Amino acid sequence: MTAPLHEARRATSDARLPDTQQGMRRRNLSRVMHTVAAHGPLSRAAVASRIGLTRAAVSTLVDELIRSGLLDELGPERPGRVGRPGSALAVSARGPVGIGAEVGVDHLAVCAVDLRGETRARIVRPARNRGRSPVPVLEELAVLVERVSDEVRRSGLPPAGLAVAVPGLVARNTHTVVRAPNLGWHDVDLGPLLRTALPLTVDNEANFGALAELWLEGESPEDFLHVSAEIGIGAALVVDGRLLRGTHGFAGELGHVPVRPEGPACPCGGRGCLEQYAGEEAVLRAAGLDPGEDRVALLAERAAAGDKEVRKALRGAGTALGIALTGAVNLLDPRAVVLGGALSRLAPWLLPALEGELTQRTAGRSCKVTVSGLGPDGPLLGAAHSVARAVLDDPVGAGGAERAG
Amino acid sequence: MTAPLHEARRATSDARLPDTQQGMRRRNLSRVMHTVAAHGPLSRAAVASRIGLTRAAVSTLVDELIRSGLLDELGPERPGRVGRPGSALAVSARGPVGIGAEVGVDHLAVCAVDLRGETRARIVRPARNRGRSPVPVLEELAVLVERVSDEVRRSGLPPAGLAVAVPGLVARNTHTVVRAPNLGWHDVDLGPLLRTALPLTVDNEANFGALAELWLEGESPEDFLHVSAEIGIGAALVVDGRLLRGTHGFAGELGHVPVRPEGPACPCGGRGCLEQYAGEEAVLRAAGLDPGEDRVALLAERAAAGDKEVRKALRGAGTALGIALTGAVNLLDPRAVVLGGALSRLAPWLLPALEGELTQRTAGRSCKVTVSGLGPDGPLLGAAHSVARAVLDDPVGAGGAERAG
Repeated sequence: MTAPLHEARRATSDARLPDTQQGMRRRNLSRVMHTVAAHGPLSRAAVASRIGLTRAAVSTLVDELIRSGLLDELGPERPGRVGRPGSALAVSARGPVGIGAEVGVDHLAVCAVDLRGETRARIVRPARNRGRSPVPVLEELAVLVERVSDEVRRSGLPPAGLAVAVPGLVARNTHTVVRAPNLGWHDVDLGPLLRTALPLTVDNEANFGALAELWLEGESPEDFLHVSAEIGIGAALVVDGRLLRGTHGFAGELGHVPVRPEGPACPCGGRGCLEQYAGEEAVLRAAGLDPGEDRVALLAERAAAGDKEVRKALRGAGTALGIALTGAVNLLDPRAVVLGGALSRLAPWLLPALEGELTQRTAGRSCKVTVSGLGPDGPLLGAAHSVARAVLDDPVGAGGAERAG
Repeated sequence: MTAPLHEARRATSDARLPDTQQGMRRRNLSRVMHTVAAHGPLSRAAVASRIGLTRAAVSTLVDELIRSGLLDELGPERPGRVGRPGSALAVSARGPVGIGAEVGVDHLAVCAVDLRGETRARIVRPARNRGRSPVPVLEELAVLVERVSDEVRRSGLPPAGLAVAVPGLVARNTHTVVRAPNLGWHDVDLGPLLRTALPLTVDNEANFGALAELWLEGESPEDFLHVSAEIGIGAALVVDGRLLRGTHGFAGELGHVPVRPEGPACPCGGRGCLEQYAGEEAVLRAAGLDPGEDRVALLAERAAAGDKEVRKALRGAGTALGIALTGAVNLLDPRAVVLGGALSRLAPWLLPALEGELTQRTAGRSCKVTVSGLGPDGPLLGAAHSVARAVLDDPVGAGGAERAG
């Protein structure tokens, strides 16, 4: 009955790779970068004290980071203090930047974020991408990426990589959009179509939205479920400050959680999925409205004006969200549920019914519901920041072609 | 709109603690122990080659582990080979053992597992614990723990700790069973009632069941949802070989995922929860049977004999499980769903309806459903192995009072 331990195939993940001096050095370089990025300007001594290494060890690491153009020395700090003045360190304003891009159903967007987290360039362009072939969409996006890249290069900021947010399931290892029903895309490899020389990452917009929430919103906890919607309804789970991606990278499909198992058929093959009650089209249908240009704005405007049909439709959507989230809270026990994306604009009319269901059905469990302050910008910002943070995570190893050249 | 990175509160988890020589030494000691446990007997050279350290470094680590009584030298191996014969190393058969215990609704059980994963002692006793006060239940369990501990001590095996599996929500940091509805327990601190001198861990039985599956079943993947049932229905999610516990440690409450939101009221405060359709009592009720002594055995026996009512009730339970698991698969994207515990005995009659729902509702996603080979023994084995593995994970730091003395 008991298989002996010596047959067990697994050890702890710690046991898989040896600790080497080289690995330790790279991790310590990352610690210095993250510490200065989070708390700088700081003296070498302050960095040493924060990360628990000797000042000598930190100085060696800092010298390497200055040589690589990732840290700047600001000159002597606080000359009034006792002892030899330390030189304050700051993350370089001329270091590499992350380029983020988003393919939305109704828009294309590209931005650049530097290592200090500041946006250095940004273009948003309305588009009608539903049902449009990937080729012209990605050609248009590539032009915007090139424009933003040229703009930051002219300021002396080399792009370190490109991350693209898409509203669909993504196979990240091959940059392929496996399925994006609201674009009508199926198995689209973004690599050849974007023709970029930059290191490329592609991910679901809900994942990037959740990362933006984690990194940029001061109050967000490290364990939360981020719900986002444009046309479909997606979610992303952050556990201990990391995304839970699932075995195939397809975790977070909240839109296809069954709400009423004998309900209306869904294109996914199921019945009564959440999207059939709380997806944008379902809500417009329930409210007796036609799809227009900016449908969320229309719903928000009508609800604010007191339109009874629209408010009832949004209450119905809130109820369905509450039922689906009850399942998610029971399974995942997150500290909070954060409504992001287009949903955040409809929150005033969704929340009462949503919270009512959730509170009643999960008595005795505490899970607050909050609304993201980033709104629809989350996925784009999450994409750009993911590239910038990858540089902080592996400052000397990472960075791509332009930094090496 | 963009909060700068220097305001971000978080770095990667790697960045939280410095790498120290001492930490590296402890991790390497663990690597040696896990390697010998998984692949031994092995020579020092073979260990060095497997973990990527020099033979000199490994020898120092091995000497320390031999002195601590955790590794044994078996003497020269393969005398016919060229060169100086290496001495084969094996995990000590006289090293510390893990004591596992289980409070079931219908039984109490205790076992001891050594560092090689072999069960060295085991007691299972039927009990009627439903609605019984925690005091006599835990007194009875404490007697069994003492008997198993005495038995292994007489064989020269010091107990390293005690892990207890309970069918309820557990606050692990305080050893407290927050809520175990099928025992009728509420906020019960096991520490004082068990009066054990051993380091104590308490966890939900579904969690220990999932860990047993991970560690002991050769074919199980590193990402799966383990569903277990005794009277209630619990689940545990394993991601990258680790349990996802949730913010409060309450993740995995599959039994309270809404299946039909307007369905029967559930004691949890919700309506139409999975337990109202697939919990043992619901199935017995649907089959027109009275609760008896061993109710799962009764259901299995009647179903095997072709009882139409029972088979229909189990089909209904399978359908409800399939609906709830559709939500879980959409949210979590596990590689597999594993049915464990009492459910595994009813699998032949649950699976067709369960898989039918899951396949139809999650078209295009691959998630196989398997049945655990450990059956109802999973939680008890998981508990005992968790203690033994904690010794392998931190061989010199861990181990508790008896090893230090």
